[in-house]
Amino acid sequence: MSSPGPGTRVGTGVDVHAYDAGSPLRLAGLDWPGEPGLSGHSDGDAVCHAVVDALLAAAGLGDIGELVGVDEPGTEGAASTGFVRLALARLDAEGWRPVNVSVQIIGQRPRFSARRAEAQRVMSELVGAPVSLGATTTDHLGFTGRGEGLAAIATALVERRTGGSEAPV
Amino acid sequence: MSSPGPGTRVGTGVDVHAYDAGSPLRLAGLDWPGEPGLSGHSDGDAVCHAVVDALLAAAGLGDIGELVGVDEPGTEGAASTGFVRLALARLDAEGWRPVNVSVQIIGQRPRFSARRAEAQRVMSELVGAPVSLGATTTDHLGFTGRGEGLAAIATALVERRTGGSEAPV
Amino acid sequence: MSSPGPGTRVGTGVDVHAYDAGSPLRLAGLDWPGEPGLSGHSDGDAVCHAVVDALLAAAGLGDIGELVGVDEPGTEGAASTGFVRLALARLDAEGWRPVNVSVQIIGQRPRFSARRAEAQRVMSELVGAPVSLGATTTDHLGFTGRGEGLAAIATALVERRTGGSEAPV
Repeated sequence: MSSPGPGTRVGTGVDVHAYDAGSPLRLAGLDWPGEPGLSGHSDGDAVCHAVVDALLAAAGLGDIGELVGVDEPGTEGAASTGFVRLALARLDAEGWRPVNVSVQIIGQRPRFSARRAEAQRVMSELVGAPVSLGATTTDHLGFTGRGEGLAAIATALVERRTGGSEAPV
Repeated sequence: MSSPGPGTRVGTGVDVHAYDAGSPLRLAGLDWPGEPGLSGHSDGDAVCHAVVDALLAAAGLGDIGELVGVDEPGTEGAASTGFVRLALARLDAEGWRPVNVSVQIIGQRPRFSARRAEAQRVMSELVGAPVSLGATTTDHLGFTGRGEGLAAIATALVERRTGGSEAPV
Repeated sequence: MSSPGPGTRVGTGVDVHAYDAGSPLRLAGLDWPGEPGLSGHSDGDAVCHAVVDALLAAAGLGDIGELVGVDEPGTEGAASTGFVRLALARLDAEGWRPVNVSVQIIGQRPRFSARRAEAQRVMSELVGAPVSLGATTTDHLGFTGRGEGLAAIATALVERRTGGSEAPV
């Protein structure tokens, strides 16, 4: 249990992708064989994208578009876990670290609960701080309810790093 | 005014229910006579459900599906305030307590402002920490704007309990 | 870098407005010449409105409807930056100050990234604390994807003011 350092801040990020039955699903850093994928220039992992935006927003370091350049060559089909690592490197370079992240997934597919614990482990290891993942449906309302796409809303707390390499100047 | 304990964390939860004119409305722990109800296995109180998910997510303790088992016998028509109490007991057992919760309700009905203060009192007493409730419409856009359903987005801060039974070891 | 005062709390606010091609666009405190405007009794600045609701919710001080009285004469076409100032005055009077605010804009227009830095400067100066702004689209899904309207989701941290005029009593 670490005490919150000074300079605790909050950030929020939302990401939406349409389903694309022709591509494999990557979500929350996991492969989901047999499930319809998400469209997108990268692998379409809406959870990773929302986490990146929430972390960057909390630290005041821009957004995912500036970080990875969505139209850049080399990002096509890229694993979005790499974007999370890039964002964390930016935070670290500026003296921030994540406290925790919470993500609400909204969509009909995949049936998330069966692999929630596994996805949380993978994402928490990736972020280096607790990541909570939950999934809900919308009673068949709206574009998520009609099964057209999936939305992810992330909220992150970050704080100023203290001690460590900064302490003995 | 209590100082934030160490281990402050944030959580987010979203819940959506379709209106069901044939059932009574329960929202934010209140009965709303004459208003169309919300469908759902329980009483459909989207505010309570979003609060539960935000609290559990902040403390890293799963989600409402795992907590109450939506398909379990005995939860049909159940008062969702009971789910909030269950979630709080889980937090307490793991050494967490709520700092505050903020909920944004999105929908055409009910006209929330008239009973906002009352609903905040009831929810704050239930949670044992300040709960802020606000309501907005969407300019008649989307499923909430067409009056098909109601959405609630909750954000919660929780912190590690300090002192009390843990102090004198 | 200021250490978080005691009584840190979180708040969330959502605002949605339909586009109104006949009015000028005001968003995040900026004028956007040539872009379709947002409908609304005031200038329709959904970013300012979501920020107001998030700040008020975090401090437990009601919502924008109570603050400015949407149907009041004098608020027609009003600059929503004034609503943010009003909200900050309410917070200050009750001993709260903003720590930071993060806003996610969801919509097809305007192309926000080109003026993101400028908008962040204006909003951060207005709020007197860091304001992060990000924008995303929804893969052409839902009312924002169809270009019918724009949504803004804001999350705010506030804390109790310490020291200053309160210290030497």
